[in-house]
Amino acid sequence: MTTEPSRTEHPHRVVIVGAGFGGLETAHRLAGAPVSITLVDRRNHHLFQPLLYQVATASLATSEIAWPIRYLLRGRPEVTTLFATVSGVDADGHRVLLDDGDALPYDTLVLATGVRHAYFGHDEWEPFAPGLKTLEDATTLRRRILVAFERAERETDPQRRAALLTFVIIGAGPTGVELAGTIAELAQDTLPPDFRNIDTQKARVVLIEAGPRVLAGFADDLSAYAQHALESIGVEVVLGQAVTECSADGVMYGGHSLQSKTLIWAAGVRASPAAEWLNAASDRAGRLEVQPDLTVPGHPDIFAIGDTVMIADADGKPVPGIAPAAKQQGRYVADCIRKRLRGETTAPFRYQHAGSLAQIGKRKAVIDFGSFKLRGTIAWWIWGIAHIYFLIGIRNRLSVAMSWLWIHARDQRAARLITQGSSKVVR
Amino acid sequence: MTTEPSRTEHPHRVVIVGAGFGGLETAHRLAGAPVSITLVDRRNHHLFQPLLYQVATASLATSEIAWPIRYLLRGRPEVTTLFATVSGVDADGHRVLLDDGDALPYDTLVLATGVRHAYFGHDEWEPFAPGLKTLEDATTLRRRILVAFERAERETDPQRRAALLTFVIIGAGPTGVELAGTIAELAQDTLPPDFRNIDTQKARVVLIEAGPRVLAGFADDLSAYAQHALESIGVEVVLGQAVTECSADGVMYGGHSLQSKTLIWAAGVRASPAAEWLNAASDRAGRLEVQPDLTVPGHPDIFAIGDTVMIADADGKPVPGIAPAAKQQGRYVADCIRKRLRGETTAPFRYQHAGSLAQIGKRKAVIDFGSFKLRGTIAWWIWGIAHIYFLIGIRNRLSVAMSWLWIHARDQRAARLITQGSSKVVR
Repeated sequence: MTTEPSRTEHPHRVVIVGAGFGGLETAHRLAGAPVSITLVDRRNHHLFQPLLYQVATASLATSEIAWPIRYLLRGRPEVTTLFATVSGVDADGHRVLLDDGDALPYDTLVLATGVRHAYFGHDEWEPFAPGLKTLEDATTLRRRILVAFERAERETDPQRRAALLTFVIIGAGPTGVELAGTIAELAQDTLPPDFRNIDTQKARVVLIEAGPRVLAGFADDLSAYAQHALESIGVEVVLGQAVTECSADGVMYGGHSLQSKTLIWAAGVRASPAAEWLNAASDRAGRLEVQPDLTVPGHPDIFAIGDTVMIADADGKPVPGIAPAAKQQGRYVADCIRKRLRGETTAPFRYQHAGSLAQIGKRKAVIDFGSFKLRGTIAWWIWGIAHIYFLIGIRNRLSVAMSWLWIHARDQRAARLITQGSSKVVR
Repeated sequence: MTTEPSRTEHPHRVVIVGAGFGGLETAHRLAGAPVSITLVDRRNHHLFQPLLYQVATASLATSEIAWPIRYLLRGRPEVTTLFATVSGVDADGHRVLLDDGDALPYDTLVLATGVRHAYFGHDEWEPFAPGLKTLEDATTLRRRILVAFERAERETDPQRRAALLTFVIIGAGPTGVELAGTIAELAQDTLPPDFRNIDTQKARVVLIEAGPRVLAGFADDLSAYAQHALESIGVEVVLGQAVTECSADGVMYGGHSLQSKTLIWAAGVRASPAAEWLNAASDRAGRLEVQPDLTVPGHPDIFAIGDTVMIADADGKPVPGIAPAAKQQGRYVADCIRKRLRGETTAPFRYQHAGSLAQIGKRKAVIDFGSFKLRGTIAWWIWGIAHIYFLIGIRNRLSVAMSWLWIHARDQRAARLITQGSSKVVR
């Protein structure tokens, strides 16, 4: 028998916008608190973004890294999950506005609305250099990558064939590095026996970074190792060069022109419009500035967490836009709400940096835990085990482990599907 | 070391159009024959259509029932796989014409181009009642079914909510029966704990059939059993009623109007335009009429096989449009080509009906092997084992077995993902 929370007591109403790592953690950590929760997301699924690049590179299926949000909260009768799009916040009226005209009253609001990729004022580049934030982004990239090989197989003009076999990744953060390494793996290990007219091992994978090194968030020596490891599997690393043009024909940087039919954008993000909803202060990337207790200045009943927020850690360095940071903030906010309901005061949020991990390709990874650094094959095993551990549920853990086993034991990638269009439509 | 076939000998050129069960079987059975093969498909994947309804009902992921065509033929250097769309056949010039202007010369042509769903002259119904033939069809249906529950959860008007919770399947062949049963399972077992405002167990699933019974291809008593089993899990079976109207509001049949926001078309198919390409005789559904040796009349070098062909078995009954029939025809044609190259004559094609299987839902199935008939739970186990056996590769067999284990042991369906659109786009 399930016990319905008594609606007559009017429990404290918490509305959480966004079911990413931060929003979901807030909901989880409020279990048992005297609140009713409404969790709103315009998607029906929570996404494990750290492995999204593996969907884009045909290594994993979409359902291996995504879960229906309401399934994750099925055991919590006080949580209502809404599949809806937020269009604004009426802070005076304490209401979240939905695009279909409905409104959700709140006593406490948690904004965990994330980021999208951004083009630094060059939105016209998006059709040519798509980014990677959603499942649809990933299946779009997968289609583009696989179609490029298919078209190269049929292309007889050497120059056009070379452009089809040139893959350019813009931005050498973890996503860019992981994409470049996995595309190189795909071209070198998975695809060669399947093609007759092209040698997929001759495909060029070019990683362009405006800064002086790859993986800028990691220690210098790990960056150097990652660059070397990428180059050893054939990735061309271009550093200190900002891209000045993206088009259907390729990319321009530092006066060079590189012909390519597949550009991928991994260079920058822009926060959700949460700052605009509140008419609140934000940085250049649109990230909300928040108080030390993660509330929005002037709105003590509105918390903002995760990638959509700009906050410094104890050393004055910005808290990175990664899953563990969002989860820590979600946990902190849930704790804050509980304490407030008990009339207790709260200490400021303090970010604990656990570490950074990135996979490079060909069974190599780098791990930077500050005092503890690791690179190479053992780092790759730790990377893999850590990611399987953080997946939700035994079923997906087994499934991802099996997919990886097949990739590494048999060079077989199960998700090499071109969907959303036949050969006619996608040309 | 692989031995390249000597190109200087000009081996007999076989072009196969379509990599479904028939086309792929032809290519497989020609292994070792003195031919060069080009296999053309406008998709990059072979699809295991008998389980497509399980993708549409969130039971399986797309990659569990689809394989890259060129991966399946990677060990066959004499086979070239082309991702291309055929626009016609120049029979006099012995060339297959592609939509991008290229042409493929052939000595023998095998047309295995399949069918699409058809609306008997009511193509305007398609947007309201989509059918199920491709992976995109399946993810579209999955989105519609899941979005209907999501919208019902937020709908306050009782009449509109009822329309959202009414699912109408038109056509009670195996696909219609399997869809109806699985949607009922979804509503009754999987979804109830996840929703707060609706009782998904009260969802209506209505199966409408113009003929006098469900599963017309099965024996009478199995049809009666299937109908009873469907009704016992809450499916409303309407027989002897042709649908006269499909719209955004629902469906009309026999003067009745049924309000529903989710209609699914499983009532009819139309053959590919292969008959038009050849200006050849076809039946009402566009299926090519072929000679007893499966060649097209007047074109002894053109074979046509599978669903796109109309041919009678030894008893004068039409050969059904099912995977085993297409595979038998593919095997026959490969054998014919070998014999012709050796100067031997060939006997006419003879269809051997192995049997029919259909899953009903809630661990029940019917099996009709002619002399041997079976129904109920044991039939369901045989159905499941047979389908896993016919999947390609250990990886997909393990994966599907694991997905089914989770569905039946834990009522959890991994693929409950609404993709291609946020809540804003899909409304």
